[in-house]
Amino acid sequence: MSTSSIPTPGYFSRHIFFCLNERDNGQDCCAQHGAQAAFDRCKALVKEAGLAGPGQVRVNKAGCLDRCAAGPVAVVYPEGTWYSYVDSSDIDEIVESHLKNGKVVERLLTPAELGR
Amino acid sequence: MSTSSIPTPGYFSRHIFFCLNERDNGQDCCAQHGAQAAFDRCKALVKEAGLAGPGQVRVNKAGCLDRCAAGPVAVVYPEGTWYSYVDSSDIDEIVESHLKNGKVVERLLTPAELGR
Repeated sequence: MSTSSIPTPGYFSRHIFFCLNERDNGQDCCAQHGAQAAFDRCKALVKEAGLAGPGQVRVNKAGCLDRCAAGPVAVVYPEGTWYSYVDSSDIDEIVESHLKNGKVVERLLTPAELGR
Repeated sequence: MSTSSIPTPGYFSRHIFFCLNERDNGQDCCAQHGAQAAFDRCKALVKEAGLAGPGQVRVNKAGCLDRCAAGPVAVVYPEGTWYSYVDSSDIDEIVESHLKNGKVVERLLTPAELGR
């Protein structure tokens, strides 16, 4: 019988989720603002840097993250850091600063008041 | 100028991601093992319990979480707790114990050695 109450250590040291949601009624959504390209770029950069895999970083597709007003968004766990990005240089900075070096990119933080 | 180095507080207190990935080459995947039904059930239970929303719980769709050998899987952040579930009663227990009361469901923890 396992009596451990300690959760298993994080399988990934950092897990970033990109909202790739596409609304089918034509409403504004992350998918209309370059989310797929941002995801692809992030994934490629992380792989290129040798950061991908167990114990390291996972770049993940996600459905609607429910913060549409701040989109396009991505969230990094376990920190729970939310980013609102605009272009590919923003992605480069998130990878280099946060995913590689653990330093939050202040200028891209999603404003706390922005939700659905 | 913002000089804060403190990340914003978690927008959701708990964020659970279900792998709903469907491999297009017919290979085994979470989607073939009831992942959509599990996601739907979890989402409905969380809503019913009044736990859904900012400051509370978000039940999210995700693409491949890259732990196919342990599937179907879901991961709860910020804890980074991975679950391998089988049926709807497993989902009920994850909602009741972990998402509602913060108590990890030991018997459903994904074995640490199971990855892709």
